[in-house]
Amino acid sequence: MIKRFTTTAFALGICMYAFAQEAPDAAVISKIRKEGLENSKVMDISFNLTDVNGPRLSNSPGLKRAQEWAMKQLTDWGLKNAHLEAWGTFGKGWQIDKYYAATTLPYYHAIIASPKAWTPGTNGPIKSDVVLIKADSVADLAKYKGKLAGKIVMMDAGAPLTSGIRPDFSRYADTTLAKMAEAKPMAGGQRGPRPGGANNMMAQMMKMREVRAAMSAMLVEEKVGLILTYARGGQGTFFTSNGASYALDAKPVSPELEVAAEDYLHILRLLRAGKTVEIEADIKTSFYNQDPQGYNVIAEIPGTDKKLKDELVMIGGHFDSWHAGTGATDNAAGSAVMMEAMRILKSIEFKPKRTIRIALWSSEEQGLFGSRGYVAKHFGDPKTMVLTPDQKKISAYYNLDNGTGKIRGVYLQGNEAAGPIFKSWLTPFADLGATTITVSNTGGTDHQAFDAVGIPGFQFIQDPMDYNTRTHHSNMDTYDRLVEDDLKQAATIIASFVYNTSQRDAQIPRKELPAAPAAATTGTTAPARN
Amino acid sequence: MIKRFTTTAFALGICMYAFAQEAPDAAVISKIRKEGLENSKVMDISFNLTDVNGPRLSNSPGLKRAQEWAMKQLTDWGLKNAHLEAWGTFGKGWQIDKYYAATTLPYYHAIIASPKAWTPGTNGPIKSDVVLIKADSVADLAKYKGKLAGKIVMMDAGAPLTSGIRPDFSRYADTTLAKMAEAKPMAGGQRGPRPGGANNMMAQMMKMREVRAAMSAMLVEEKVGLILTYARGGQGTFFTSNGASYALDAKPVSPELEVAAEDYLHILRLLRAGKTVEIEADIKTSFYNQDPQGYNVIAEIPGTDKKLKDELVMIGGHFDSWHAGTGATDNAAGSAVMMEAMRILKSIEFKPKRTIRIALWSSEEQGLFGSRGYVAKHFGDPKTMVLTPDQKKISAYYNLDNGTGKIRGVYLQGNEAAGPIFKSWLTPFADLGATTITVSNTGGTDHQAFDAVGIPGFQFIQDPMDYNTRTHHSNMDTYDRLVEDDLKQAATIIASFVYNTSQRDAQIPRKELPAAPAAATTGTTAPARN
Repeated sequence: MIKRFTTTAFALGICMYAFAQEAPDAAVISKIRKEGLENSKVMDISFNLTDVNGPRLSNSPGLKRAQEWAMKQLTDWGLKNAHLEAWGTFGKGWQIDKYYAATTLPYYHAIIASPKAWTPGTNGPIKSDVVLIKADSVADLAKYKGKLAGKIVMMDAGAPLTSGIRPDFSRYADTTLAKMAEAKPMAGGQRGPRPGGANNMMAQMMKMREVRAAMSAMLVEEKVGLILTYARGGQGTFFTSNGASYALDAKPVSPELEVAAEDYLHILRLLRAGKTVEIEADIKTSFYNQDPQGYNVIAEIPGTDKKLKDELVMIGGHFDSWHAGTGATDNAAGSAVMMEAMRILKSIEFKPKRTIRIALWSSEEQGLFGSRGYVAKHFGDPKTMVLTPDQKKISAYYNLDNGTGKIRGVYLQGNEAAGPIFKSWLTPFADLGATTITVSNTGGTDHQAFDAVGIPGFQFIQDPMDYNTRTHHSNMDTYDRLVEDDLKQAATIIASFVYNTSQRDAQIPRKELPAAPAAATTGTTAPARN
Repeated sequence: MIKRFTTTAFALGICMYAFAQEAPDAAVISKIRKEGLENSKVMDISFNLTDVNGPRLSNSPGLKRAQEWAMKQLTDWGLKNAHLEAWGTFGKGWQIDKYYAATTLPYYHAIIASPKAWTPGTNGPIKSDVVLIKADSVADLAKYKGKLAGKIVMMDAGAPLTSGIRPDFSRYADTTLAKMAEAKPMAGGQRGPRPGGANNMMAQMMKMREVRAAMSAMLVEEKVGLILTYARGGQGTFFTSNGASYALDAKPVSPELEVAAEDYLHILRLLRAGKTVEIEADIKTSFYNQDPQGYNVIAEIPGTDKKLKDELVMIGGHFDSWHAGTGATDNAAGSAVMMEAMRILKSIEFKPKRTIRIALWSSEEQGLFGSRGYVAKHFGDPKTMVLTPDQKKISAYYNLDNGTGKIRGVYLQGNEAAGPIFKSWLTPFADLGATTITVSNTGGTDHQAFDAVGIPGFQFIQDPMDYNTRTHHSNMDTYDRLVEDDLKQAATIIASFVYNTSQRDAQIPRKELPAAPAAATTGTTAPARN
């Protein structure tokens, strides 16, 4: 193990001295392993987050229940100062109070679907034949005017399904990990230029958006009864979209169902063939406008070193989820692992030099809002790069949000200097499959909020499992998808990283500070993928 | 192609003369291929059987609709004498008129499930906490007496789910087909003795059955509101069981839902942890007692040869299905392929020597009842082996009922003499992947009814696809699972087999007649698997 390790270290051009210095305290790591692997509570935490508290859509009652539970649990373990901290204004909460829909013609068949997030219900049971809307342009919509009041409608869209010729489930092959390890840093962390043809695609997308916006407005005006929307997926699994607007002043939208592919395509084939399809539905949803603030759960193990206790190590994951499943892999898994890491450290009665803080973010799914709001308040503004004094006091932030897969290594986010340190810290976990350091970036989750203001922020490399095929934003993201051994491994490794970071003489080295974006840039962000 | 063929032929110990004699008429085969592959209607037929007419449970309105449609379609193509023919008494028809169920505590969640076949509804909306019943013996049931009126109950059963590490979908590898081709006939077609331990297993099963029967009676007596039953499957796919009794004098049973694994396990985990789960449900089902007869659809292309027109070639597949999907691969696929084969033969204006008859069986799912009833009436009684004169007039029966996979060859059912004939008939389809002759038996479907009275009855070897993983008796057995190219191939090959059988000078050779079972044997049959 040492030999392999040394070879890799030289390949990275780092001298042996650094490793000797970074070598983790074997006795402590052994305690952490024992607690994390043999006395784990990670499945119990996961059960509470998913089965007991349910979906955790931003600002929903489910999220609030889970937040209350987490604060109590963290306090019960002995963490200090567990509290909800507002990160800014989010908007409306929402939840499903009833979902029922079925075809009644040509025969009875109950439909697998879910109300689209932040859409209203049907205001009681409705029944109508289904109108197929074919519209490639705003002008095409005119022919439907005056004909849609109370009707159930669907668009002529949706691709035939293909069968599962590849397994749903995968782990990283050694060769893939080796390639990751060989990645070179990108100059300035910039992405390459867009490939040719982007303008055409953009124009098409803009046109589609225009049609959709016009359609949405028309359907509200027409007082349509219910929209059926094709949901990607298959075989009973469906993936939800980003939902309607949650803004307090959002324009009204129509009731809308995201319908599993089989049921959608069934209705679509019948309508295309000129058959009558009749549907009955009864959908109730509730909106929560009383408190539009968004909140993160924060708790600590206070530092004990005179010089270092005002410094921080942070860990976190997003606590919010989508609504069709119980957000087990996205991201009860990461949240449970981070809570379990804190429990492990309390359980071995660790007294850290630096303060250790856990953050369970909200509204990650809408654009990393919870972590970005927190970072803006505590550490600095990525738009102006005006930083707070505390920005210098946080050593690192560690995040977990890529599903239930075990940790295979760390993405450095271009921070080459952190590589040999983490390589050393992973050494005791080579037998658990965590060996890979890649200089590459990974995106789509909350470590980016920290990285954006120059704080070392990291997401671990995790085995993909069935995240992309079955669970990510799907109705099948349930407790059943969690793999106990993988979550135990992740919590154990993260507890050790947190331990090492809190005790290390120096902070984790930093990259060069990012430049503030040009003044004209408003700092809008791409939609989050996690 | 010829060379490979010859080699195999010698391996089977057959002289070349036989092949020359059996060589199909190239011009006719070419016409059949062109019509079957380039002008196919098989997907349109499948669409009508599945999407338009819906589930086709034995004696349900859906089956009757599909039968009416098939008779009209066969007649429109020019087949003669399309009619419903009673095969005997089946029992009650049944269908779902409404299905709705959702947890309301600890939070709202709509449940993926289906009423169990031939169970009653809830007689209006009901709502109750869920009672977890733990009973390993009849005595264990006593503690629940007097406590279950109107309650929703479930058993403490159901295994944790595993992830999809193997693909859902597969085709036969060349090596697998080669092994099939090498199979040796079993002496007398008998299965080997049961492995040791069977008595213990049987005793356990008998005990479980006893508990179940006692439980079922108690739950009816207690007037339980609804039983939730674990349905095998995962990720939104669930497999239904064989249902309750459809007999006209069936004992009353409780309302019962077969619940998708994720939803069942969710509730079970909560109950095991001592949490309250409340469910609301509204289930309506209808029974149809007016006509307990079961019917097959029969139609013909009459023979034209003076000597041979009273002889028969039969093809068929079962037309009935289970109720949670639309029975696309089980067995709209086989039915559509057989109908399409008849259409192809009419379309090329084929005038057969022998009469060609198609049979679309009903109640296969309950024990091959449709085909067994038909065979008993027309050809003989497998219990006594008293045969009719017509038993000698039927050359062969061909069946298709192993899903949407293309034909890879033929199971000979131990009829070695038919091997070289079929080998020759497959020659023109080697480019379509159909090359394998195996002497082996395959079971679980309607060719067995013919085989049982000494009539050459064959089921084709078909690629497995996702039949066992996703579609067989599942809620996901829908049109989406049908593979167009495979169904076209199958219809083309079967049309050619029917053509060859109808024109062949002699009938297909027969195996030795099976002996009549001992007088004491009542001829009960294992439950069908297809």
